[in-house]
Amino acid sequence: MRLLVLNPNTTDAVTQMLLAAARPTVAPGTVLTGLTAPRGVPYIASRSEAQLAGALTLEMLAEHQGDHDAAIIAAFGDPGLLPARELFDLPVLGMAEAAMLTACTLGQRFSIVTFTTTMANWYQDTVDAYRLSGRCAGIRARSLPFTAIENVQAEMEQAIVALACEAVEEDGADVVILGGAPLAGMAPRLRAQVPVPVVDPIVAAVKMAEGLVTLAPRKPVRGRFSRPPAKPTTGLSPALAARIEHRDAAQ
Amino acid sequence: MRLLVLNPNTTDAVTQMLLAAARPTVAPGTVLTGLTAPRGVPYIASRSEAQLAGALTLEMLAEHQGDHDAAIIAAFGDPGLLPARELFDLPVLGMAEAAMLTACTLGQRFSIVTFTTTMANWYQDTVDAYRLSGRCAGIRARSLPFTAIENVQAEMEQAIVALACEAVEEDGADVVILGGAPLAGMAPRLRAQVPVPVVDPIVAAVKMAEGLVTLAPRKPVRGRFSRPPAKPTTGLSPALAARIEHRDAAQ
Amino acid sequence: MRLLVLNPNTTDAVTQMLLAAARPTVAPGTVLTGLTAPRGVPYIASRSEAQLAGALTLEMLAEHQGDHDAAIIAAFGDPGLLPARELFDLPVLGMAEAAMLTACTLGQRFSIVTFTTTMANWYQDTVDAYRLSGRCAGIRARSLPFTAIENVQAEMEQAIVALACEAVEEDGADVVILGGAPLAGMAPRLRAQVPVPVVDPIVAAVKMAEGLVTLAPRKPVRGRFSRPPAKPTTGLSPALAARIEHRDAAQ
Amino acid sequence: MRLLVLNPNTTDAVTQMLLAAARPTVAPGTVLTGLTAPRGVPYIASRSEAQLAGALTLEMLAEHQGDHDAAIIAAFGDPGLLPARELFDLPVLGMAEAAMLTACTLGQRFSIVTFTTTMANWYQDTVDAYRLSGRCAGIRARSLPFTAIENVQAEMEQAIVALACEAVEEDGADVVILGGAPLAGMAPRLRAQVPVPVVDPIVAAVKMAEGLVTLAPRKPVRGRFSRPPAKPTTGLSPALAARIEHRDAAQ
Amino acid sequence: MRLLVLNPNTTDAVTQMLLAAARPTVAPGTVLTGLTAPRGVPYIASRSEAQLAGALTLEMLAEHQGDHDAAIIAAFGDPGLLPARELFDLPVLGMAEAAMLTACTLGQRFSIVTFTTTMANWYQDTVDAYRLSGRCAGIRARSLPFTAIENVQAEMEQAIVALACEAVEEDGADVVILGGAPLAGMAPRLRAQVPVPVVDPIVAAVKMAEGLVTLAPRKPVRGRFSRPPAKPTTGLSPALAARIEHRDAAQ
Amino acid sequence: MRLLVLNPNTTDAVTQMLLAAARPTVAPGTVLTGLTAPRGVPYIASRSEAQLAGALTLEMLAEHQGDHDAAIIAAFGDPGLLPARELFDLPVLGMAEAAMLTACTLGQRFSIVTFTTTMANWYQDTVDAYRLSGRCAGIRARSLPFTAIENVQAEMEQAIVALACEAVEEDGADVVILGGAPLAGMAPRLRAQVPVPVVDPIVAAVKMAEGLVTLAPRKPVRGRFSRPPAKPTTGLSPALAARIEHRDAAQ
Repeated sequence: MRLLVLNPNTTDAVTQMLLAAARPTVAPGTVLTGLTAPRGVPYIASRSEAQLAGALTLEMLAEHQGDHDAAIIAAFGDPGLLPARELFDLPVLGMAEAAMLTACTLGQRFSIVTFTTTMANWYQDTVDAYRLSGRCAGIRARSLPFTAIENVQAEMEQAIVALACEAVEEDGADVVILGGAPLAGMAPRLRAQVPVPVVDPIVAAVKMAEGLVTLAPRKPVRGRFSRPPAKPTTGLSPALAARIEHRDAAQ
Repeated sequence: MRLLVLNPNTTDAVTQMLLAAARPTVAPGTVLTGLTAPRGVPYIASRSEAQLAGALTLEMLAEHQGDHDAAIIAAFGDPGLLPARELFDLPVLGMAEAAMLTACTLGQRFSIVTFTTTMANWYQDTVDAYRLSGRCAGIRARSLPFTAIENVQAEMEQAIVALACEAVEEDGADVVILGGAPLAGMAPRLRAQVPVPVVDPIVAAVKMAEGLVTLAPRKPVRGRFSRPPAKPTTGLSPALAARIEHRDAAQ
Repeated sequence: MRLLVLNPNTTDAVTQMLLAAARPTVAPGTVLTGLTAPRGVPYIASRSEAQLAGALTLEMLAEHQGDHDAAIIAAFGDPGLLPARELFDLPVLGMAEAAMLTACTLGQRFSIVTFTTTMANWYQDTVDAYRLSGRCAGIRARSLPFTAIENVQAEMEQAIVALACEAVEEDGADVVILGGAPLAGMAPRLRAQVPVPVVDPIVAAVKMAEGLVTLAPRKPVRGRFSRPPAKPTTGLSPALAARIEHRDAAQ
Repeated sequence: MRLLVLNPNTTDAVTQMLLAAARPTVAPGTVLTGLTAPRGVPYIASRSEAQLAGALTLEMLAEHQGDHDAAIIAAFGDPGLLPARELFDLPVLGMAEAAMLTACTLGQRFSIVTFTTTMANWYQDTVDAYRLSGRCAGIRARSLPFTAIENVQAEMEQAIVALACEAVEEDGADVVILGGAPLAGMAPRLRAQVPVPVVDPIVAAVKMAEGLVTLAPRKPVRGRFSRPPAKPTTGLSPALAARIEHRDAAQ
Repeated sequence: MRLLVLNPNTTDAVTQMLLAAARPTVAPGTVLTGLTAPRGVPYIASRSEAQLAGALTLEMLAEHQGDHDAAIIAAFGDPGLLPARELFDLPVLGMAEAAMLTACTLGQRFSIVTFTTTMANWYQDTVDAYRLSGRCAGIRARSLPFTAIENVQAEMEQAIVALACEAVEEDGADVVILGGAPLAGMAPRLRAQVPVPVVDPIVAAVKMAEGLVTLAPRKPVRGRFSRPPAKPTTGLSPALAARIEHRDAAQ
Repeated sequence: MRLLVLNPNTTDAVTQMLLAAARPTVAPGTVLTGLTAPRGVPYIASRSEAQLAGALTLEMLAEHQGDHDAAIIAAFGDPGLLPARELFDLPVLGMAEAAMLTACTLGQRFSIVTFTTTMANWYQDTVDAYRLSGRCAGIRARSLPFTAIENVQAEMEQAIVALACEAVEEDGADVVILGGAPLAGMAPRLRAQVPVPVVDPIVAAVKMAEGLVTLAPRKPVRGRFSRPPAKPTTGLSPALAARIEHRDAAQ
């Protein structure tokens, strides 16, 4: 099966990190394609940036979804996830959602740790939107300087371990989720230092995507994720306009 | 004071309906400016359309907010409201939010009635995002054909009355909110036919906007609505890029 | 329009403070009338005192509401608010409710700060009764000595600032509400010292009252705020008895 | 032990019905005293009437509590219950609260059935205030004419049975609570007609009161039910003023 | 009436402590029978142990319930309570449930204090299962060494007092519940040291059991606690098999 | 990898149905082992049966888990799931939990449909225990006669389709979960008849189990799923006693 790993940030190095973390975990026969946003910000850290990234996600999906069996929105916080699920026919997964749902099988309450406090506000919105706040022990963040987004892991390992341990001891987390695409691939290195399971969202998303493709759910024609009726559009990208106007081939 | 009535739809006739409904209700000295979206869809009725409209709202606000004391996002469902509050300094209100909060002073539970079932899904997301589901008796919608978006009121008055009465009798609504900009100005005509108060969202939003301008709240520098740190951008509209990069004058 | 500012405490100096804080904020044409309770306690700080004050509020409203377009129950905690809304035809607002709803347009979570810990219990009941606990970051109070209720502001400014800052930093408040009528008018002085918006409840209530009078909602004849059926009474004040027995003129 | 059965209505016949239903169920040595409100309404059916009755309850308790080990506020809806618990030292129980808590030991979700729809609004407030809505399957009421409050049982038995059965079949109630003092003593007659347990609130309250007196809990000096600090009063009844001003003997 | 005090632990000394604490509080005519588990663990402190104990509880009840009017599952955490209520006809109470419901009449929020942190996880499940988390201020536990389960009280009194006081001061508890059968009978000694009421679960359970027997609720034939249809079984204890297969006498 | 499919019922035909439904969906290299309960009931349909089955699950896991990478408790309702996760080191999944979490990626609200009403009570407990009631549109069940548990699918297909369609149209379900092991493998046949995705729990569980084994989470040594301290036991099965007493080899 073919899975689209759609990074709604403009930093291709992050896309490559995500693919590097995910590829060793796929089942035989699964192929991952990376895609990096053509415009926007180098990393999404606020709700206004997520609003823009979500719109861009729809545009990117409209253009690239055709060749894939499922798509993964590869920014923790899942910009555009629910709208994408409504608009498109293929299964679409988000790293935050997949990580949280996977964490639910490992403990009663998960915590998310991340490396900027602005992100924590956005992530909290995500937890709430998924109605999983009853399963969330908290979000812990510390804003520390880093030289570049692709260096976050190397420069912050001890800070991330400290946040994870605080989440366990002070907030009662049973599981820790590493929030933010720049932390992809870091989980195994934390294993011995954090006393509870640590979930890497890109791995969780890829494994849930494989599961969904196997389940082969039909596109709903009723309910909250049925496709909206056709609507005229003005000034949108060609592929997105075609999708919204029901002029695209693959319905 | 000057209030920006920002319609994130492309239908200027709806903008004019909103202004016509609101102007008789403003306090002496309040001036309303209308603004219609330059691209997008003629009316927003789904979450994917709202995702795009929210991004456009940020772009429109970046360009036009400078001359105003407050802005109203004039599509029920409030696309881009929370991101706009985060990104900009002036008070920003949404019609849905203002209608719900106003309804809370008139009853314990409000219902929203609207004229397409797709919208109901989006509106439910809005109620949940504002954590007001404990105050919401339900959302009632019926998808009926209409000749044009500006004719909805004339063609659907009896259907809207019927939905409102069902909301009261079957769902236990104490107040009814007319959901959707195309219903602006309709409330007085329903007064005798609906046994509970009926709230017109654009009026609620304008009156709350006047209140907020009078309160003159400071822009927070802490918490969920403080401005995100400066961030480089690629390919965004000039005014929006300037705002995100902290290159705009009015910070 | 004429708004009744009904203070259910016996301290007329507090009534005057409330009027002094509110008058500069009214729209042209709005007239405020003050009314101080003829019996009870000098300031309400507990639920038993609020129970008595709420009954007195109904009695005062029965006697004085006739000349007004709306009424504001001017004790934070809103004694008698929901019963008053049920029993009378004019819009009735509470300072706590109006402050919380206004705060909801300025942040996701508000905190209330106040100057006696007993009050905090009562205020928490109020937040819960309005089903706004999902929007409340907490209530912070410290019981400090003060020479007289009208001196609270002058003697406690630094303590109130400290509580507000703790609410922001430790509880995650996006907005701070000054709880308690004796703090009316204090908000502008705190602006530079508190990093988030500060809401003055009497101003919030007056602006929402103006909005409601403009909206001109009908008295419901169905639902939780419809008028109760006529009932015989024994030993109540004449105006209140007349209202409950449906013998009053203005129904 | 001596239990005060305080009826905050003015109908002595209801007080006698309550005592008649409760007396056969007390433990050896328990003595019940009845007390009927000297003013107010013949039966409380709305939140405004409950506000007044709650204030009267405090006044009646201040005068009569001295000779008792515990008090029961004998109107379903419990007017003044939480304020009374705050203000007085002896255990105070409410019929609604006791019935709901007892019902929680008989099923996961209880329903309340009653004989006027206005009461249902008030009862819903009560369920919410006790944070038991997660245990409540609903409140079912039907407003039917009755000749006098003391004849409700005789005239409405079949209607009450019908409501109870609807609560079970349509709302999923595991237990039914008979709401309203005029239904006291009716439960045994419904036993064969309702397929789940039926709780008589006055019996539940008396048995819980006996339990509390046996437990002999101390009056809290911290928390939400500690006694408020002394406060000057104006115009209150002598016993109530003495209690609030801390001039009463029995603290 | 005859009440069965069923201890699902194997420590008979704890059964005797429970009986010793409860006997002085029963009404004239109430007889308590103790029963200790024939297999399992000496004290239940985890959810896996509770799973086993709950199954054993059903087996013990099937064998011994016949001679009793009600049964009390005498391990805080109530292993098997809801299944027992479903399967058997007599009222069945749990110490945790009875303590929490009783605490609800003494304050708005209760805390549970206990002597091992593992237990706290299990107790939290219990609070959630009863949907009483809105009434729970928290669970405080500290794992301290003790020489034998029957010595816990003597060795830990000061630790328990400290936890109770922290619950009041830091968590806002209005009432404290002593969690764990080994703390039975300890409440009176804490009275002067803890500033809020302290509830002893076995006393609460016995008093509620007396109340239920007096109420004489019918066994439901509808809803969540009606008896499951007959089912063949393999390899279960004779009395339990008879009950599940509907071969027992007393249906 | 090796996955244990543990059926806590005594009906081996159901175990075979589960394996038949799951085997076509596993990734290359995954091997499924079936295990049927040696005692208990032929199918679990109530909470008392689930209590017994959960205890048996622990016993079966203690004996058989050693050869496997993960285990699936293959009765919808997941008897013993959380205790098993606490007690053992390998990942343990439940069919109900896995189905609900998977459904969360396909819609906002799922419904469960099943073929006996008694089961619905138990399933509701499960939804609540996972704190997923905010994602659940309801549970629909109809008790129809069937000749044998292995014939349920063939005899009830139209009834299940009808329930699923009611869940969509009346309850607002976005996804339907087939509740109950006897429905395993039925989903593809319903695809054209139900307008939203249909989730087969055993497939969901197997795919999530593969994902978890790939993630290779560590056994927590802190939090709610850390292993309980060693405890002496009496009368338990040898393997289970060894596990609880920490005498087993593979810790």
